Amino acid sequence: MDNPAAVGEAPVRFETDPSRYVHWRLEIEAPVARLLLDVQEDRPLRPGYPLKTNSYDLSVDLELADAVNRLRFEHPEVRALVIGSAKDRIFCSGANIYMLGSSTHSFKVNFCKFTNETRLALEDASAHSGLKSLAAINGACAGGGYELALACDEILLVDDASSAVSLPEVPLLAVLPGTGGLTRVVDKRKVRRDLADVFSSLGEGVKGRRAVSWRLVDETVPLSRFAARVAERAQALVSLAAEKAGPGVVLAPLGGGYTPEGVEHRHVSLRIDAAARVAHLTLRAPEAEEPSTAAAMRERGSDLWALRAFRELDDVLLDLRFNRPEVGVVVLETRGDAARVLAVDAALWSGRGDWFVSEVLHHMKRVLKRLDLTARSLLAVIDRGSCFAGSLFELALAADRSYMLDAAGGPTLATSQLNLGALPMSNGLTRLGTRFLAEPQRAAIPPGETYDAAVALEAGLVTFAPDEIDWEDEVRLAIEERASLSPDALTGMEANLRFAGPETMETKIFGRLSAWQNWIFQRPNAVGEKGALTLYGKPERARFNWTRT
Amino acid sequence: MDNPAAVGEAPVRFETDPSRYVHWRLEIEAPVARLLLDVQEDRPLRPGYPLKTNSYDLSVDLELADAVNRLRFEHPEVRALVIGSAKDRIFCSGANIYMLGSSTHSFKVNFCKFTNETRLALEDASAHSGLKSLAAINGACAGGGYELALACDEILLVDDASSAVSLPEVPLLAVLPGTGGLTRVVDKRKVRRDLADVFSSLGEGVKGRRAVSWRLVDETVPLSRFAARVAERAQALVSLAAEKAGPGVVLAPLGGGYTPEGVEHRHVSLRIDAAARVAHLTLRAPEAEEPSTAAAMRERGSDLWALRAFRELDDVLLDLRFNRPEVGVVVLETRGDAARVLAVDAALWSGRGDWFVSEVLHHMKRVLKRLDLTARSLLAVIDRGSCFAGSLFELALAADRSYMLDAAGGPTLATSQLNLGALPMSNGLTRLGTRFLAEPQRAAIPPGETYDAAVALEAGLVTFAPDEIDWEDEVRLAIEERASLSPDALTGMEANLRFAGPETMETKIFGRLSAWQNWIFQRPNAVGEKGALTLYGKPERARFNWTRT
Repeated sequence: MDNPAAVGEAPVRFETDPSRYVHWRLEIEAPVARLLLDVQEDRPLRPGYPLKTNSYDLSVDLELADAVNRLRFEHPEVRALVIGSAKDRIFCSGANIYMLGSSTHSFKVNFCKFTNETRLALEDASAHSGLKSLAAINGACAGGGYELALACDEILLVDDASSAVSLPEVPLLAVLPGTGGLTRVVDKRKVRRDLADVFSSLGEGVKGRRAVSWRLVDETVPLSRFAARVAERAQALVSLAAEKAGPGVVLAPLGGGYTPEGVEHRHVSLRIDAAARVAHLTLRAPEAEEPSTAAAMRERGSDLWALRAFRELDDVLLDLRFNRPEVGVVVLETRGDAARVLAVDAALWSGRGDWFVSEVLHHMKRVLKRLDLTARSLLAVIDRGSCFAGSLFELALAADRSYMLDAAGGPTLATSQLNLGALPMSNGLTRLGTRFLAEPQRAAIPPGETYDAAVALEAGLVTFAPDEIDWEDEVRLAIEERASLSPDALTGMEANLRFAGPETMETKIFGRLSAWQNWIFQRPNAVGEKGALTLYGKPERARFNWTRT
Repeated sequence: MDNPAAVGEAPVRFETDPSRYVHWRLEIEAPVARLLLDVQEDRPLRPGYPLKTNSYDLSVDLELADAVNRLRFEHPEVRALVIGSAKDRIFCSGANIYMLGSSTHSFKVNFCKFTNETRLALEDASAHSGLKSLAAINGACAGGGYELALACDEILLVDDASSAVSLPEVPLLAVLPGTGGLTRVVDKRKVRRDLADVFSSLGEGVKGRRAVSWRLVDETVPLSRFAARVAERAQALVSLAAEKAGPGVVLAPLGGGYTPEGVEHRHVSLRIDAAARVAHLTLRAPEAEEPSTAAAMRERGSDLWALRAFRELDDVLLDLRFNRPEVGVVVLETRGDAARVLAVDAALWSGRGDWFVSEVLHHMKRVLKRLDLTARSLLAVIDRGSCFAGSLFELALAADRSYMLDAAGGPTLATSQLNLGALPMSNGLTRLGTRFLAEPQRAAIPPGETYDAAVALEAGLVTFAPDEIDWEDEVRLAIEERASLSPDALTGMEANLRFAGPETMETKIFGRLSAWQNWIFQRPNAVGEKGALTLYGKPERARFNWTRT
């Protein structure tokens, strides 16, 4: 069932743009944008399940992810986003059940991770980009549909006899709401836990005044006044954010080259060693001087190294997750001139008051979070020719382990201001802060320091620093050994070790909620022959093994 | 495989005392106690797996749990506990693998939950009882053996060529360390995450100076000086805690009556409706006046209602978890005079400066946490004759939902000082605080208030308050509906909704770590025909499906 061949013949591609959207309509009337869900039921990602009643699959969600990202870069004039539906009396009925029922376990888990990242990106846009969002629920809103609304700053529900919000996963499908629903209900909207319990076990959901008094939505509005009230609230959201100066920056296509052997982008390569189940992921420093002022950076647009390289990295991470399921170890490598990376970091830091530069930094942050959350073993190899400096040093800090060559004239590490807070992890700490929980003073490294292997080892910045004699064997053995271990045990181990320190809503979603959901996605009561997910839509009723664990 | 019949023919009983210990020796030389692990390999809980090399099963761990609890009540003169081994050059090799390999999923999960609660009880004794602990590791210390050490305040490791601490679960068994190991390594001992990664994927573990410099142990000591150094450090721990006055209080046997239909204790009953998969758990208020001063309470000893009733409740919860796996819904009921419960609470609160009274309160707290962590749906039924007052009101607050009869002369709820902080949940909040995350002022209820159903509903203290006409049907339907849902989905849902708000090491262990571990315990790579856990000790090597999720 987890045979990668069964995952799908055609690899998933994540690049898109509004002109190619199939399932969403993006309408901009600055300062408000509207994203209207209008799922084309005959155009799912893969044949086999019609996307009825505005239900979604990955092809729908990757357009949403693209739209939210593009709004931040291309439409600084937009300060409120209304997420609605183009279909009458249906907002969104959530993830398509037949898609879930027919997917491999690995695909289901990765699908949910991606949709979670998309919802968090919506919240990130609200927190850091002055792009507030409003869910305008014009009718049926179930499961993932409501979870999308939960990620918005405000939820308006049409007040009629039938429109309700619901999380029917537990009673109807014997699985959990997979996109942060339970966590956001009690931790973001702070719904009382017993009411959340009733709500989450009630197939038909909650509507009208009860939905408001339970804090599930902010307001209900009769259909006749719905559009006007949505517009009014959108204007109110606009007023929460400051205006941004200057035109947007269009995100040009990356146009990478994809083969079974890997991916080639301008600054990022992925090379797959399929037999070893190892991927080599290489980031290259800028090859020429990069602009140093905010104005010049905006001029450079999406060709700016810091933006393009991290967009490429993002694309490669998604390719790895969805199209290379058997790769167990990702070797993180860098190539090029560390000074150029440090100059980029310095320019970004000094220009961070500019909205575009700020967006570039927040984008880098999100991509690095995607790396932290990628369920593959990450080994940083700091060898000759590498440039783990500043923002690229974060790759080594994101790795489960790092190996640094200790040799005369060997590689160095370097810090920049960006290691000190601009690129936090999901737990809210810097990667250095997470690393040095026991000795927080070690995390406060001055920017601009350079470390050779011996000093880096002493400072606790790398895991191992073999000399030239041991280097090749030690790195090779580490990779081989890692690739030989159980992929499941490694996923669980890494999920527990990577995020020490404080928990946030984000880490709760990926750690606690996702882990429980992965468990349930394996259980016969959901996916067995008589499981509820398997039998959904069929006349036969699910049969449960009643043992409680 | 999850057929309860296969879980074991003989039900597990949790009551024991030092005179009946099989696997531990408790030696007391006040102010130091020593608990020496000396597992009798031919006396496992169930036949089929010898407990070689000081490996443990539930029968070993329940003695440990008993010992730690008894030390707090019976031996106030003890201020440091040395946990060591009576076997030469073997400390503890962890949970018995063959026991795990031959257990049902449900048993494995419940076993790990219990061992986790025991480790947390050790830490609770250190934090609140002045009973500090020291792990004296005299030799091999693997897996659960090291996890036991991690729960101690201090870890001493003998320094020789072979003695190491290890978490070999991932490389050897393709499962996670099940008793908080990963969490405690990075969150309690704050081992650097990359070193934790190396350590947790290294079958042979880490010894000597490296173990110290990686923060895995506090000190290594040559064998010749080991005993002396352990004694020295134990004395140092003694000096951290204040002396307690007066003699200990012996915990008399509860001697409950156990039948297939339930459990009968003096103050607590469990009645099983097997066909409905529902249990009725009833706590009864004191039947006569309880002592009101600390001295009188100590005089009453383990017959004190607050101590005995909660010991009985603890016993019943463990019986439910291990011996009644198919019960899905637990109906929480109380009977008796609320005034008596409130008087008990007032006496406990005013006497809390006394060590014994303080122990009673902390014991109540631990039992209520055990209730929170019990993976069954909890419905509180507040009907005529009930006494959900003060400490017993916590039962209703621990429930996933509560139903209160709204009728003239109907039941009332009442608050006491104990609802305001003495009985916190694992997340560090009171149950009222968790309930009212959105409106913290509602959680600050004055003690001594009484609420009838209408007022309680208005104050958000109960979920539903049907009148006499609807009462029976509504409660019956709620129970039936709940019992009809997938037990797995409910377990996951409740684990996510019960612990809103802050995360602590404790909630991380039960939420994040346990959920991942449950997932892995289901995966063919661990428990399939060719899984590593299944094949452990056999000549055949595990075969993995390499798909990463």
